[in-house]
Amino acid sequence: MVIVMKPNSKESDINEISKVLSSLGLGVHISKGSERTIIGVIGDKRKLSDVPLELMNGVEKLVPIVESYKLAGRTFRPEPSVIDVNGVKIGGKELVIMAGPCAVESRDQIIAAAQAVKKAGAQFLRGGAFKPRTSPYSFQGLEEEGLKLLKEAKEATGLLIITEVTCEKAIEVAESYVDMFQIGARNVQNFQLLREIGRSKKPVLFKRGHSTTIDEWLNAAEYIMSEGNYNVVLCERGIRTFETATRNTLDISAVPVVKSLSHLPIIVDPSHAAGKTQYILPLSKAAIAAGADGLIIEVHPNPKCALSDAAQQLPPDDFYDLCKDISKIAEILGREFNYAG
Amino acid sequence: MVIVMKPNSKESDINEISKVLSSLGLGVHISKGSERTIIGVIGDKRKLSDVPLELMNGVEKLVPIVESYKLAGRTFRPEPSVIDVNGVKIGGKELVIMAGPCAVESRDQIIAAAQAVKKAGAQFLRGGAFKPRTSPYSFQGLEEEGLKLLKEAKEATGLLIITEVTCEKAIEVAESYVDMFQIGARNVQNFQLLREIGRSKKPVLFKRGHSTTIDEWLNAAEYIMSEGNYNVVLCERGIRTFETATRNTLDISAVPVVKSLSHLPIIVDPSHAAGKTQYILPLSKAAIAAGADGLIIEVHPNPKCALSDAAQQLPPDDFYDLCKDISKIAEILGREFNYAG
Amino acid sequence: MVIVMKPNSKESDINEISKVLSSLGLGVHISKGSERTIIGVIGDKRKLSDVPLELMNGVEKLVPIVESYKLAGRTFRPEPSVIDVNGVKIGGKELVIMAGPCAVESRDQIIAAAQAVKKAGAQFLRGGAFKPRTSPYSFQGLEEEGLKLLKEAKEATGLLIITEVTCEKAIEVAESYVDMFQIGARNVQNFQLLREIGRSKKPVLFKRGHSTTIDEWLNAAEYIMSEGNYNVVLCERGIRTFETATRNTLDISAVPVVKSLSHLPIIVDPSHAAGKTQYILPLSKAAIAAGADGLIIEVHPNPKCALSDAAQQLPPDDFYDLCKDISKIAEILGREFNYAG
Amino acid sequence: MVIVMKPNSKESDINEISKVLSSLGLGVHISKGSERTIIGVIGDKRKLSDVPLELMNGVEKLVPIVESYKLAGRTFRPEPSVIDVNGVKIGGKELVIMAGPCAVESRDQIIAAAQAVKKAGAQFLRGGAFKPRTSPYSFQGLEEEGLKLLKEAKEATGLLIITEVTCEKAIEVAESYVDMFQIGARNVQNFQLLREIGRSKKPVLFKRGHSTTIDEWLNAAEYIMSEGNYNVVLCERGIRTFETATRNTLDISAVPVVKSLSHLPIIVDPSHAAGKTQYILPLSKAAIAAGADGLIIEVHPNPKCALSDAAQQLPPDDFYDLCKDISKIAEILGREFNYAG
Repeated sequence: MVIVMKPNSKESDINEISKVLSSLGLGVHISKGSERTIIGVIGDKRKLSDVPLELMNGVEKLVPIVESYKLAGRTFRPEPSVIDVNGVKIGGKELVIMAGPCAVESRDQIIAAAQAVKKAGAQFLRGGAFKPRTSPYSFQGLEEEGLKLLKEAKEATGLLIITEVTCEKAIEVAESYVDMFQIGARNVQNFQLLREIGRSKKPVLFKRGHSTTIDEWLNAAEYIMSEGNYNVVLCERGIRTFETATRNTLDISAVPVVKSLSHLPIIVDPSHAAGKTQYILPLSKAAIAAGADGLIIEVHPNPKCALSDAAQQLPPDDFYDLCKDISKIAEILGREFNYAG
Repeated sequence: MVIVMKPNSKESDINEISKVLSSLGLGVHISKGSERTIIGVIGDKRKLSDVPLELMNGVEKLVPIVESYKLAGRTFRPEPSVIDVNGVKIGGKELVIMAGPCAVESRDQIIAAAQAVKKAGAQFLRGGAFKPRTSPYSFQGLEEEGLKLLKEAKEATGLLIITEVTCEKAIEVAESYVDMFQIGARNVQNFQLLREIGRSKKPVLFKRGHSTTIDEWLNAAEYIMSEGNYNVVLCERGIRTFETATRNTLDISAVPVVKSLSHLPIIVDPSHAAGKTQYILPLSKAAIAAGADGLIIEVHPNPKCALSDAAQQLPPDDFYDLCKDISKIAEILGREFNYAG
Repeated sequence: MVIVMKPNSKESDINEISKVLSSLGLGVHISKGSERTIIGVIGDKRKLSDVPLELMNGVEKLVPIVESYKLAGRTFRPEPSVIDVNGVKIGGKELVIMAGPCAVESRDQIIAAAQAVKKAGAQFLRGGAFKPRTSPYSFQGLEEEGLKLLKEAKEATGLLIITEVTCEKAIEVAESYVDMFQIGARNVQNFQLLREIGRSKKPVLFKRGHSTTIDEWLNAAEYIMSEGNYNVVLCERGIRTFETATRNTLDISAVPVVKSLSHLPIIVDPSHAAGKTQYILPLSKAAIAAGADGLIIEVHPNPKCALSDAAQQLPPDDFYDLCKDISKIAEILGREFNYAG
Repeated sequence: MVIVMKPNSKESDINEISKVLSSLGLGVHISKGSERTIIGVIGDKRKLSDVPLELMNGVEKLVPIVESYKLAGRTFRPEPSVIDVNGVKIGGKELVIMAGPCAVESRDQIIAAAQAVKKAGAQFLRGGAFKPRTSPYSFQGLEEEGLKLLKEAKEATGLLIITEVTCEKAIEVAESYVDMFQIGARNVQNFQLLREIGRSKKPVLFKRGHSTTIDEWLNAAEYIMSEGNYNVVLCERGIRTFETATRNTLDISAVPVVKSLSHLPIIVDPSHAAGKTQYILPLSKAAIAAGADGLIIEVHPNPKCALSDAAQQLPPDDFYDLCKDISKIAEILGREFNYAG
């Protein structure tokens, strides 16, 4: 950390700060510039978390030099992590596709969705049992009944199951039914929930929030990891901006940025970013071309009958086309996806 | 709701949509323009929540006409609501000021804070017992121990107590200690938590999220109200924008906008918006001048020793000056605040 | 356009509005809903541009149904436009790559850049002669001297030349030296400049502004087209958001969105979006995979000696790799780029 | 400036950088931390503007310590500037109100507007002669004819005149008619125009752009000042965010932030921020309470007949009420505004 002093700061202010830093076992490096004096702080920044340096006399601002997450960063683990979810590896050479309806609605619907998804080569079936909706008057999910149907679909197809959990109770209930948890965008800084997930050890797909910076996102991942669960896969799903032509603005740059800052795998959710099926194919191709480790896509056997987010759920035929294109692009990029359609 | 058809939509598409709407008991009003046909839907929009109209043939987009919240809106209750919290009325003629440290740290600290806050005329003592922090390595609050200290401070000064709750367990624990709950910005769409608060009936201060539109915020308030708790006070605390000179961008316009759309009272939190004490006084005056029903301000008996957010906590003397100024502005605006300093 | 009336609007208000609309030769369609009356306006919206409908008694808001640009829209021209710039076609099967240094600095630099760019198969040499810089104390460009050097580079390599123009004088000076003008992000709503470009008829690359919605961007393109210059190529270059990990946030969705709303070609500038060379390759691949008609990329023969934006200029070797990858992806997408390296 | 080195940077990288800095006459201060080495650069940062330090081996990033504007900053002039516009002082004890219609439409309109504005105590008449409009099909202003009408209104009332200029020609034409120029939000980084204004020496009201940070805005002001025109008054008018309930989001914090960073006066434009007359009064009061030196407000003698931006133009009676309220708040704040109504 660097402490920038005000133009008119006094020698005694600088001495006072040096004393405090030294008393905490931190090194001090004073550098007098033509307009400002700056003080470099050497040592573990966390020793300073309870010291309000910015209020000491003569201090103008603090400039962090090292990021505040540790376990999620490249410094902690320089090589990319590969997360093994009951045999399927995320972050390796093979691309991973998770697909299925926004919400589990009925046995027929989820079995049909699972079969369609399996047919194209996807490795995971997604489907919401607990649905956080903007309006309290919208469909809120089948809860445990939905989880049972997901398990049936798994038995019928061999697909792995991923579902969103929104509270401690949901974690407890879902634990035995699913292979991977999902934390949704609205809960990205629900630290209570993150700690619970951290204690569960089950792999988790961790979505970015609508207005979370990449730095905050990696700090939030740190909440999960600091409880001992290192099986975290990140998911970019669009951020909120002034543009309203799409539901959210897919931050495609997050893919290479996360890859440079963190060892965690990252996949992309084009469905929530776009909000419209017509943009899902181009955005999926872009995500893979940018280096994403996979995709999570909303697919519904009959979108016109969907109970939630109908406009962004692909019909099976479009999903097959998408998987076919992805498998071709994968090859060029030195990756792999086995289109099974 | 208005359905806008594509330029090339067919008569049969329009007929198909009319049939669906009629079958749901909704009125249909077709209007053929020079470039587009639009279909007005007459009746309760909620009947449509499970019908994916946007996927029907020929449909270009849906345009909502009526907001989707009901209980929080002016149509439901045209007069402003006044929320009574154990004798203190929020939303009436008198302005309400809530103040206290970011986090409860010790008996001495919270008693000193309470006395300072009381002296200036504030009606509520605030203080965090459960602290959601961006990094898992920062101070996370004293939990129940903190609540006990808040209760002691109440007994010593007669101030009402408000504290943030972050999960069901926190609600249960805090219920008997505090007069009012606070939902923080990060939990604005933690719908599970909102429903719990809705069932508790205790008054709640409901902060806007970093990237929540006013429409989404009122829909989230609807989650609380639809469970039967109408004692909701809104709190504008800054939104996330591209500007980094302040911690957040205080959306001062939210005050008159909320007043025009909703009957709920609204107060302003200048401390989290500004992130720096030097801007709290001007922003507090601006908030009251814009019509806010009160303020929530971070005050610490000794900011230099604060364990969290030190840079945005006012020392008592500055808080007295602020309350004095507010009482003068209140008078001009036909409102009232009894500065007691 | 749809006029939404307030809940308490009167019959007489509605009659008054109907009268005004009829007097302008516009059709009127009244639709009484359960909570609101709405009035559909039938005919050319431009007749209303001087009538402040939103101030008429009983009016709550106006909802536009049809976009306000004409010439730039798909309704005006359903087929994609292909812009011919002295023999190179933009928007056809072949992808177009424009590359070169941020600023023209010297004969040696621009000739070396042109040769490197040509070698990889790019069709255009870019290079700034007039540089709009955030600080007045930064290098501002060689002006006409720079244009002469660009022309020399053209003669030496056969590349077409594109350069940014920032004012009328620059247009006059540059007209005879270059094949295509560029309007930069900061001038996206400099309507005076847009009209001048409109009158010049020379093809123009029209960059999106930092905070321009796609709708505003197409309306701004309309300024150029309404003066008779239809040779407009759009360029997405990143928008301003809260995220600071990249210089701007590349709005990759703008590619398919623009393709669905407009017939104009669109290319992508990953250099200004990323702000760092390490992200240019993944973003370039993503742009092409999303359907862009080409790229404009900053390439400098020796980035370490660049006089402006050094951090985002690729060295030639990285540019060759990029072009090679692009040519492979193009093939899979049914497009074409002749990597010549 | 501080240079942050990568974790794995080598001694030889650091030596190389030191050599370059020394050769430019800059001081070097090396500080080895536990995770990173940082290099403090001592001396005038501008010497580095042509050296791409970020590309040197081992460099991770550059952290600026001192802002890049000089003349606009508090370090250059610690006391607030008071700008004298033909006898009216902006930035002193007295608040300044500029008011008038969005566009000059006719002699009757502008004279009526001037008389209404004068009656309330405003010191300036505003009125657009050159109107930059989002769509090329909207009313674009009366140009020189409008300036003549403004001058007539000045002669009739004694009000000073302010009008927006959008290009060099407009500056030349307007120079002899008006007392103060205005640069609109869309031209905030039209550096060519800023330099022209800088050379003209006439006082200028300089609006913030839709997505301009305060730092960029002060750097843009520097363009005007570095040409010798120090008579710059800043104007906050709302920034673009995700919120759509208002036309723009008024960044009220910009008032105290600008006051702390710069000596230039700052006024607020609530009309363009709000976009609706009903919010202008609360936002005006908030602006003054936050410390603004004045307001610029759209007032039209008959808003229902306005040719542009009708929804945000106040009728005279509402403007009188506003001025009365402002004069009362001014007194409490130790400032002054002579309501003359």
